[in-house]
Amino acid sequence: MKQGKFITLEGVDGVGKSTVVPNIEQVLQSHSIPYFVTREPGGTPLAEGIRKLLLSEWEENVTAEAELFLMFAARAQHVTEVIKPRIEVGTWVICERFTDASFAYQGGGRNLTLSLVAHLAEAVHAEYWPDLTVYLDLDVGTALQRRAHRTQDRIEKETIDFFENARTTYLKLAETESRIVKIDASVPLTELTRTVSMVVQNFVSQSS
Amino acid sequence: MKQGKFITLEGVDGVGKSTVVPNIEQVLQSHSIPYFVTREPGGTPLAEGIRKLLLSEWEENVTAEAELFLMFAARAQHVTEVIKPRIEVGTWVICERFTDASFAYQGGGRNLTLSLVAHLAEAVHAEYWPDLTVYLDLDVGTALQRRAHRTQDRIEKETIDFFENARTTYLKLAETESRIVKIDASVPLTELTRTVSMVVQNFVSQSS
Repeated sequence: MKQGKFITLEGVDGVGKSTVVPNIEQVLQSHSIPYFVTREPGGTPLAEGIRKLLLSEWEENVTAEAELFLMFAARAQHVTEVIKPRIEVGTWVICERFTDASFAYQGGGRNLTLSLVAHLAEAVHAEYWPDLTVYLDLDVGTALQRRAHRTQDRIEKETIDFFENARTTYLKLAETESRIVKIDASVPLTELTRTVSMVVQNFVSQSS
Repeated sequence: MKQGKFITLEGVDGVGKSTVVPNIEQVLQSHSIPYFVTREPGGTPLAEGIRKLLLSEWEENVTAEAELFLMFAARAQHVTEVIKPRIEVGTWVICERFTDASFAYQGGGRNLTLSLVAHLAEAVHAEYWPDLTVYLDLDVGTALQRRAHRTQDRIEKETIDFFENARTTYLKLAETESRIVKIDASVPLTELTRTVSMVVQNFVSQSS
């Protein structure tokens, strides 16, 4: 059976992930490819419950390990209930944030070992790694400025160092993983969306 | 600094864990040992929030991996906020269920590898394994009968096979881990509580 492809969008907060989703959709529509858009953490009732716990403020300090395990508990539900069944019937899945975000935020940002993150990823989605990851890269100062007007959740309120470490991890992943395409998100929006569309267009051409 | 000891109580639902807690307390009181009683999953506001998600009924199937990660997310908070700070100042901690329950329920019951459970345990409490684990052993049929009058949560509603597999795993652990003392819980209550008190009394004597 023809399987759908799994496309993820990554990058620190404020980099423009949501903004470029319609451009990816447009490319898939122009090829009459059935697709589904989703985002993490969340995507099922239990995963949304976990999302609430993750992004709420607590009087206690949320440990790095608890944050990582909550992310992967939500991911296990999301993969099993949403991503896998769609890919299996030929639908493409576009997902904002996935395991690369855990490498970047809980690994890089919270200083957990990347091998622990990889261990959980293998347990949850050994057969469902993204086929294409669009990584939007931007210096942290500019990214934080872009999303300064939004209400910030517990993780978005982190220090600049936290996001710098997340970005450094994203950049390392982009160097070693051929599925990750790094895109400069500092350019004007029209140029950014053009580049994203072109990347997805190329991926569709190679996939057919 | 003198550290407190960490005592855990284990066994399938209905075996009498809560019933024997006062007997353990009595022994510690008679030696003027400061102690704190707690139970898992839970013990901090975030961990109690996770407990709610874990024990609720969901329309979706809760994956074995999500259940395991939620247990360890709650455990990470419980160890960091409750168990570790008390043990460090010399207070003994008595905890109903801990990582052995994850080996038994998510490992044995849900058929996850024990090495995955061990990996999470190392990440969360490498330095805080129980010093003494009182494992109450009872055939599953009798245990389920004993707790039949109680309201049952999502996990308690599992099949007999699930609990049989949990018990088998508990029994294997009890054979290999010298910290685990297996106690026959099929005997009359007065005999059971006497045995538990004796085990804890011996442990206190060896510890001082």
